[in-house]
Amino acid sequence: MIEETTPSDELLDRWARLRRSQRRQSFQELPREYMDDFFLALDAPAQAELLLALPYAERRLFVRLLAPDDAADLIQETPKGERAGLMELMDDITRQETKALLDYREDVAGGLMNPRFARLRPEETIEQAITYLRQQLSRVEMIYYAYVLDNSQQLLGVVSLKDLVRAEPEKTVAEVMTRKLFRVSDTANQKEIAHLLTEHGVKAIPVVDAQGRMKGIVTAEDVIDVLREMDTKDIQKVGGMEALDGPYFETGFFAMLRKRAGWLVILFLGEMLTATAMTHYEKQIEEAVVLALFIPLLISSGGNSGSQATTLIIRAMALGEVRVSDWWRVAGREVTSGVALGVLLGTIGFLRIVIWQSISPIYGQYYMLVAVTIFLTLVGVVTFGTMTGSMLPFLLRRCGLDPASASAPFVATLVDVTGIIIYFTVAKIILNGTLL
Amino acid sequence: MIEETTPSDELLDRWARLRRSQRRQSFQELPREYMDDFFLALDAPAQAELLLALPYAERRLFVRLLAPDDAADLIQETPKGERAGLMELMDDITRQETKALLDYREDVAGGLMNPRFARLRPEETIEQAITYLRQQLSRVEMIYYAYVLDNSQQLLGVVSLKDLVRAEPEKTVAEVMTRKLFRVSDTANQKEIAHLLTEHGVKAIPVVDAQGRMKGIVTAEDVIDVLREMDTKDIQKVGGMEALDGPYFETGFFAMLRKRAGWLVILFLGEMLTATAMTHYEKQIEEAVVLALFIPLLISSGGNSGSQATTLIIRAMALGEVRVSDWWRVAGREVTSGVALGVLLGTIGFLRIVIWQSISPIYGQYYMLVAVTIFLTLVGVVTFGTMTGSMLPFLLRRCGLDPASASAPFVATLVDVTGIIIYFTVAKIILNGTLL
Repeated sequence: MIEETTPSDELLDRWARLRRSQRRQSFQELPREYMDDFFLALDAPAQAELLLALPYAERRLFVRLLAPDDAADLIQETPKGERAGLMELMDDITRQETKALLDYREDVAGGLMNPRFARLRPEETIEQAITYLRQQLSRVEMIYYAYVLDNSQQLLGVVSLKDLVRAEPEKTVAEVMTRKLFRVSDTANQKEIAHLLTEHGVKAIPVVDAQGRMKGIVTAEDVIDVLREMDTKDIQKVGGMEALDGPYFETGFFAMLRKRAGWLVILFLGEMLTATAMTHYEKQIEEAVVLALFIPLLISSGGNSGSQATTLIIRAMALGEVRVSDWWRVAGREVTSGVALGVLLGTIGFLRIVIWQSISPIYGQYYMLVAVTIFLTLVGVVTFGTMTGSMLPFLLRRCGLDPASASAPFVATLVDVTGIIIYFTVAKIILNGTLL
Repeated sequence: MIEETTPSDELLDRWARLRRSQRRQSFQELPREYMDDFFLALDAPAQAELLLALPYAERRLFVRLLAPDDAADLIQETPKGERAGLMELMDDITRQETKALLDYREDVAGGLMNPRFARLRPEETIEQAITYLRQQLSRVEMIYYAYVLDNSQQLLGVVSLKDLVRAEPEKTVAEVMTRKLFRVSDTANQKEIAHLLTEHGVKAIPVVDAQGRMKGIVTAEDVIDVLREMDTKDIQKVGGMEALDGPYFETGFFAMLRKRAGWLVILFLGEMLTATAMTHYEKQIEEAVVLALFIPLLISSGGNSGSQATTLIIRAMALGEVRVSDWWRVAGREVTSGVALGVLLGTIGFLRIVIWQSISPIYGQYYMLVAVTIFLTLVGVVTFGTMTGSMLPFLLRRCGLDPASASAPFVATLVDVTGIIIYFTVAKIILNGTLL
């Protein structure tokens, strides 16, 4: 569907799979006219890696391609000793702007923003404003809105290009501008900004410092990577591991092993409680080995329903669809879902035993009581799993932790131990005097 | 951090939690000057719902706020009978553009694009081009690049604002434009476009029809929702349920139950195989009840390691970090990881039995052989879980299915059955002549 692929696209496709030592050479083999595009298409860590692999004399050409926000990202990915050398290669204005951006932490508005935006003065006429904007075109690269600032750089309002061109030329900017507009402080967290941009559908958000001076704008483009990174971490946590900080093949084998082993060991230690719980019921199993046959089925049903519920709530929280204060409404809905799902699975389990028994009588003379035990246990375990899975993210968030840590395997482990207790308690009651 | 919240922001925060019947009233209670912003901040289904709740006379005001791509989204969310009425309210140009967009499926480039872009002719001088662009400002809302089209609307090249302003005024557009540029066909899938925009870092991609005529542009803003929706579906699938199509509270109780029940039942039926497998080992359990104690611990360890591996690979595939052709490299890496993680958990399991036994001798005289059985089973189960979890997404993709369907619970279920077989096979060999 995508027409026209260039040598730089092909290299981009292969890039992650190349050995580091091959990358510089592959880049230098590109036809000259594709090099710029290719370099700009790389992310900051890859740009830094490539740049430092190039001979010093060739670096300037590529450093000069970068806008200040991208240059700042690049510098942040560069070892400290190399930074000054790269900054030297920039033109004066970009170097100054890049330095200003580097003072911010990477994950706040100030570190994310583009300092090159179109600006106007309130007292200008529309005609003057349009002429003035034309002069700014080379600086701003892309025009979303034009921001109206006074002499001390205070943000007074905003005008869209549309507003400007439609207004009568003799009016002043102050007369046509919109005064109320979103703004974020330069220390605002990148997650908040991402939410604001996606929820409110504004195209760009102005960033102001503590004195109300406008410093830059953040756009959808700037937060798209932030959002995807957040989503990646959530998915990895839901899958039961510490979030990786980089792509699969870029993450070292031992770094990845450590992140995976951490959670696996915690889950393993938690799951050991099942062995302890089982020890208490060893006598029951000895008397009725038939009970042991259903243990994996029962506990995994609790785990699966818990995984579903926790995943659903974690995502709804991440998208802002569900807040901490909604926990009560969610609880009501989930308990009803849990019972319904439990009855459904319980019925299937019940039928399975009854039908199987009529084909080959492996469950003994009390098969009907066993079937009832399985039914009731499933209702209990699935309801408990659903409740635990849905409430745990709220609990974690309330404690100031990341709700995504309530991963599917974590919930499953929690529910496994309880599932065993529910099972043998129900069995004790139903099978008392017969099998037990 | 976010300064200045308006009544419309407050309503936006509450919106999803309001009953449908309260929404129109809350909207109409907004001060007039906030209504437009609020309406524009809603997503298309909410806009459609609100609009249809308003008296007919008030609708025009809000319909006219929408750009054609947003108008098309709105129409698509409107019941068929109401569509003509809403189209009537648009101005002629927007109606025409909206109609053209409605001919496209929602999930292809043509349905995503904005038909209002800045256009230039190749023979114009730079000076003429700048004047001409100024006239277009009211149409285009936002300028990324200006596209150069010939008389038959064929896309010839692109110029950035920067290029234009820096060029000598007497040169022609054709002399300064860049001729090689990405373009996508109007039938290209939205996922491909999202990838292209995020991977290659271009700000806007031109969309052309089968005859090569330029139809519109797609920007980061247009795909941000597409990407988040994809991520949401992936997360929900990883958590073991069919993807919901809407926010948690907006999805009807029974619709949600159906989506959850579907997967739960499939997993339950799969997990029934564990009961079948266990039946084969009933005699062994009877002879050595101690074996039953470790079943939940062993199978959940396989499930957890499988969940991790599948989640990792699903995400890496979604981000384009790992391709189908990489399966061999991934397999090598994962088998090594699996053995390492298995030895780690196996060692913990071994020590647990040996240490526990020295405190209270519950595992009998052959506890050392039991410990060895647990160790070997864990190595086998974790290695198998990791391999299955990492390879299943490749297999699904190869079969043309969504790799995200290899959810954590699905992999866990698959691994549970195998785990039981591995366990009792190892036990048979190690404990032969002693416990068995």
